[in-house]
Amino acid sequence: MNTISGNLLVGQSGGPTPVINASLAGVIIAAQNSNQIKKIYGMEHGIEGLLVGNLKEIIISEQEIEQLTVTPASALGSCRYKVKDEDYTNILQILKSNNIRYFFYIGGNDSMDTCNRIAKLAESEGYEMYTMGIPKTIDNDLPITDHCPGFGSAARFTAVSTISAGRDLEAMKTFDDVAIVEVMGRHAGWLTASSALLKNDFKDAPHLVYLPERTFKIESFLKDIKNIHQELGYVFISLCEGIRDENNQFIGTGNIEKDSFGHVPVALSDGPAAYLAKIVKQEIGLKVRYNRCGTVQRSFAECTSNIDREEALIVGQKAVELAIKGYSGKMIILKREEGKDYKCHFDVTPLENVANVEKLIPDQFINSEGNYITEAFKDYALPLIGDSLPRFFRFK
Amino acid sequence: MNTISGNLLVGQSGGPTPVINASLAGVIIAAQNSNQIKKIYGMEHGIEGLLVGNLKEIIISEQEIEQLTVTPASALGSCRYKVKDEDYTNILQILKSNNIRYFFYIGGNDSMDTCNRIAKLAESEGYEMYTMGIPKTIDNDLPITDHCPGFGSAARFTAVSTISAGRDLEAMKTFDDVAIVEVMGRHAGWLTASSALLKNDFKDAPHLVYLPERTFKIESFLKDIKNIHQELGYVFISLCEGIRDENNQFIGTGNIEKDSFGHVPVALSDGPAAYLAKIVKQEIGLKVRYNRCGTVQRSFAECTSNIDREEALIVGQKAVELAIKGYSGKMIILKREEGKDYKCHFDVTPLENVANVEKLIPDQFINSEGNYITEAFKDYALPLIGDSLPRFFRFK
Repeated sequence: MNTISGNLLVGQSGGPTPVINASLAGVIIAAQNSNQIKKIYGMEHGIEGLLVGNLKEIIISEQEIEQLTVTPASALGSCRYKVKDEDYTNILQILKSNNIRYFFYIGGNDSMDTCNRIAKLAESEGYEMYTMGIPKTIDNDLPITDHCPGFGSAARFTAVSTISAGRDLEAMKTFDDVAIVEVMGRHAGWLTASSALLKNDFKDAPHLVYLPERTFKIESFLKDIKNIHQELGYVFISLCEGIRDENNQFIGTGNIEKDSFGHVPVALSDGPAAYLAKIVKQEIGLKVRYNRCGTVQRSFAECTSNIDREEALIVGQKAVELAIKGYSGKMIILKREEGKDYKCHFDVTPLENVANVEKLIPDQFINSEGNYITEAFKDYALPLIGDSLPRFFRFK
Repeated sequence: MNTISGNLLVGQSGGPTPVINASLAGVIIAAQNSNQIKKIYGMEHGIEGLLVGNLKEIIISEQEIEQLTVTPASALGSCRYKVKDEDYTNILQILKSNNIRYFFYIGGNDSMDTCNRIAKLAESEGYEMYTMGIPKTIDNDLPITDHCPGFGSAARFTAVSTISAGRDLEAMKTFDDVAIVEVMGRHAGWLTASSALLKNDFKDAPHLVYLPERTFKIESFLKDIKNIHQELGYVFISLCEGIRDENNQFIGTGNIEKDSFGHVPVALSDGPAAYLAKIVKQEIGLKVRYNRCGTVQRSFAECTSNIDREEALIVGQKAVELAIKGYSGKMIILKREEGKDYKCHFDVTPLENVANVEKLIPDQFINSEGNYITEAFKDYALPLIGDSLPRFFRFK
């Protein structure tokens, strides 16, 4: 237990999730329960707002916290700002002048790097501040933690929308041939893989799943489609926006400029689904539709995982509770317990272990042809998308 | 009350909805309760299956009916087949040989035409058969009926996904500028208009709504975007896939071939959102994302309107009950009652009144600039999307 009292600052960063505000709510609830925390401040638009001194004091009722918990996207505002070396001194100055002693950043790998550097700088300058990272990403690509809050809800949307749109294609198979769904994920295919979580029958969608963990080859893709179409009369394909060819080039992005992190912003291009829809039409003459739910995948308010929301709230609370106990420079992680029934407990890992590291889908979760997932992946991911899953009827 | 007993045939046609199977369930439930109906047959893939004699006897338990009611898309299979004149004699022959005395077709305007012609042919040939149309379309473009089963659920998905993705854009406004959402609808913009149903604040999405009922002008579109962006820092646009320019050409469809009904299948092209995203980038240099939920809009299983599902079930039941009473050649319609609280009762209209007629959004539901909806539209459509609507929190 540390003894310092002062103000708390919390920020949200990177792509939003349907439950990132539950983590914010968790931070606020735990902070309100603490005598050592005086004022609660939020960064407007993350570190980018902090840099220009945009701190907002959070005064919020119990009822408003409940509403915050079910509000999608980052209520404080988010950012994708690559902090420059010269920014850090500035940041520390602002933190000191606001007597920030507890610092929380809810984000993914890039944000954990920022968070780590702020923690290190404060320490090296002898400024007593307890800094904790709170994991958040629909991409599920943070290492060490079993999974990331936000993933379960986005995965549920992806699974439900795929099995639903699959029924649509099946019903329309005398008219439509192929449906391609483009799923978010720059380098990691976790969310795309989740599109298969509700499939129970060969007729169910998806029939093919293409992940950025495997090189995308147009010839195999067209061959796979022809095979399934011959057998079933329709083909439902789920593919990740981040699929790349032999030369490591994203499919269908054209000559789009990199962002400040050096990433290709696939979401701002036409994307692979629109591109591949044309190729399939041209090369094998099948009718193709493509769906690209885009930011709906990571924000949709009416298809969240109850387990994900609960965990998102708890990681926020835990971060504050542990900071008050004297923890700093750590990110909260989830550890799955052994046993048939899903159960996780919470632990921490040093921020440097997660900063800028991306966890890709391991080999045992992808089939040998590289065009589908394995049962082991289902065992891993199914508990995360929550209870009361839809079950559909089909005439025999 | 008619006296003939025999078999029942039911089919589903056109684009599926999340509740079209509730109407099928309604038909089955009412048929099972009738002594005059012997066997219940379903057409596999609508009229297209009927033409080749693909009738499936429906034997289904109570529990399966419950599951059918919540299963999206047409469980019997659907079609988009333009029946040729020479097909009708063939159809009547198949109906006679299966002793079909009760005929139900669940569909939109094209399907009601088919249904009408079958009813007329049976009558002219002196074959006693009771034929009823059951309305279904997410497009909400059938005339006479207050609204169409299927619309309320698709409208709820559109409203919830728009308000949710709007929060995502708002959170990311330091990085993203514009989001364009493409909504289904060939000639009628009802579903696109519904994207605004949950907006309560100027900051909420959408800020601009473009409907096929108004000519789409790129210059006004770009000017509208610049204005909102200047005021708010981000712009959320919802536009219908069916928007057309001064020459009545669909935006962004390129040289795509017409289907057998003579319709341009916009959904099989890149669509206007991808096209306009590029234009906005080029012309005003803003970052643009586009979302195209495609068939997810009309199939998503976890965001249906309770009112829509209930009405979809009832129109199916009513059709059978009225056919048994001797009605034929009619489509079930919904009539809204006067008064503050939403209430509809059921009635019928002759099939020829709806066959091939499209109901567009009336003027009083569109603002004078042609880039947004009016409060009168909200009053009309809000009750249809059901109860327990999401309400979000926003920091002041």
